[in-house]
Amino acid sequence: MGLDDGARSPHDRLARALSDDMAAVNALIRARMSSEHAPRIPEVTAHLVEAGGKRLRPLLTLAAARLCGYRGDHHIRLAATVEFIHTATLLHDDVVDESHRRRGRPTANLLWDNKSSVLVGDYLFARSFQLMTETGSMAVLSILSDAAAMIAEGEVLQLTAAQNLSTGEETYLRVVRGKTAALFAAAAEVGGVIAGAPAAQVAALRTYGDALGIAFQMVDDLLDYGGTSETIGKNTGDDFRERKVTLPVIRALARADVDERAFWVRVIEKGQQTEGDFVAARALMVRHGALEATRAAALHWSDTARAALADLPDDPLRGMLDDLAGFVVARVA
Amino acid sequence: MGLDDGARSPHDRLARALSDDMAAVNALIRARMSSEHAPRIPEVTAHLVEAGGKRLRPLLTLAAARLCGYRGDHHIRLAATVEFIHTATLLHDDVVDESHRRRGRPTANLLWDNKSSVLVGDYLFARSFQLMTETGSMAVLSILSDAAAMIAEGEVLQLTAAQNLSTGEETYLRVVRGKTAALFAAAAEVGGVIAGAPAAQVAALRTYGDALGIAFQMVDDLLDYGGTSETIGKNTGDDFRERKVTLPVIRALARADVDERAFWVRVIEKGQQTEGDFVAARALMVRHGALEATRAAALHWSDTARAALADLPDDPLRGMLDDLAGFVVARVA
Repeated sequence: MGLDDGARSPHDRLARALSDDMAAVNALIRARMSSEHAPRIPEVTAHLVEAGGKRLRPLLTLAAARLCGYRGDHHIRLAATVEFIHTATLLHDDVVDESHRRRGRPTANLLWDNKSSVLVGDYLFARSFQLMTETGSMAVLSILSDAAAMIAEGEVLQLTAAQNLSTGEETYLRVVRGKTAALFAAAAEVGGVIAGAPAAQVAALRTYGDALGIAFQMVDDLLDYGGTSETIGKNTGDDFRERKVTLPVIRALARADVDERAFWVRVIEKGQQTEGDFVAARALMVRHGALEATRAAALHWSDTARAALADLPDDPLRGMLDDLAGFVVARVA
Repeated sequence: MGLDDGARSPHDRLARALSDDMAAVNALIRARMSSEHAPRIPEVTAHLVEAGGKRLRPLLTLAAARLCGYRGDHHIRLAATVEFIHTATLLHDDVVDESHRRRGRPTANLLWDNKSSVLVGDYLFARSFQLMTETGSMAVLSILSDAAAMIAEGEVLQLTAAQNLSTGEETYLRVVRGKTAALFAAAAEVGGVIAGAPAAQVAALRTYGDALGIAFQMVDDLLDYGGTSETIGKNTGDDFRERKVTLPVIRALARADVDERAFWVRVIEKGQQTEGDFVAARALMVRHGALEATRAAALHWSDTARAALADLPDDPLRGMLDDLAGFVVARVA
């Protein structure tokens, strides 16, 4: 590792330490996203895959496998598998959320159509199951098919919880685990399983991935209201417009007086939003410490992730995973 | 079997001969379509699953397993698996085709929304992979994940081939294999595989399912233009409105003169359809023998399915599968 590593993000350092593995993963993704007969499939997939996602989930799989001393090549298949599952869910999410931009580019549903996003997503799901089947590990198949079910269940739960102010923190956490943490947890866990790591290490990897995913999503939900800083940044307000009941809303609502409650009913339940409502919503969150509380919750889950690493072998990769758990909350710390 | 069996359809006789197995499949489907936290999932699924589908695919799996002497219970899981995959594709198909009716009832995308259909479909796909993983058979997982990829690829191919008059019979057959025959073939094949049948029997089951699926879809495509009889029945014209290039269109176009070609370009490629165009399209198909040719192709695939059964054990179930291959084309024979 170079002298400038201190200046790099933990994510970049992980990608660098695992660069050979990651190159193999990228080659496998390119090979398997192809379709001899339906060129629409690689077109749509490439639009998303090559838009420069962070590849965080495959890096977790690779790091977990290497950290547990794995010397084979199935971790490459598993890393490609989790990226395919992730890409498939992004394609379907953009249809469900009627999104127009993703990773700074127009979404596939906008460039092609919803039909292509639905069907290419299905294709990538199927490809992911082909890939994981090639590892020959039933334990891995069980973990990843469970994760896929949990992801879909979380997304449906989010759909029915949106616009519903009776959504509590328990339901919120279940949605977050489904939409984000389930795949982080499975990505890390299968790396340990394929390496034949002891049960305690596998459990530690799962706990790490789960907590990292929850922290990651809570930071996202917080930043959608501009974070705790005074200035509201870019890319805010999507959740508010989509009337999602995230932790900042839940916490602000818990302390709302009669007038404030009427405000939340109007903007979230009835969806009657006018200019200035987003700023007003944020002001209520600040007044009741809802953004600070969300920040504290994210930091708590980041700490949980770091603590889980104690059960894993002492190795530079473990240090990077530790730093990564700090990095995902650094934007709000 | 009762004295009135001669009057029953082969499908009914299969369902009756396998009634205990089928009851177990239905119980498993009900148990696995549940979701503790997202009640929307069983609501949407039940709407479709309990609408009285023919359960043809799970019957194929059960019949194949029993015909090959299977005595375990994994065929129940596999039959539920193929029905879940089928149900998931129906949910996504209805979104893609913007359908309003399915099995005589309003579609889920109409009753709830497209979002629910996409996400509940994803949930059922994931559930199907959980179920097949429980069999512990890598061979089965490989067959079914390949089928899932082939289905999605066929659907994407259909999407890009629609409205495109350069679509040839080879592409049409590929679409048919993807959207219909792939799951029929896999459903029959996994029944043999789980029973530990010899390779020749497994191959025969696959050929049977593939050919049965192709015949089934060709009959569907023919009936969408009212079949070869003089009177046009109900439920016709969907493919025409959706500008799908099915075999009747391909055959009529192959013999079209300049004026007729201009007609097809207008109604299929440009989508400028007016009243009377469907009747005019059908008249062109009759003039050029396109409906007769589609009928002959369906009968050919039905014969192929029946011929494949020669390699399977002599058993009443084999006779029912033979009759079933005749039954699927009986509506146009």
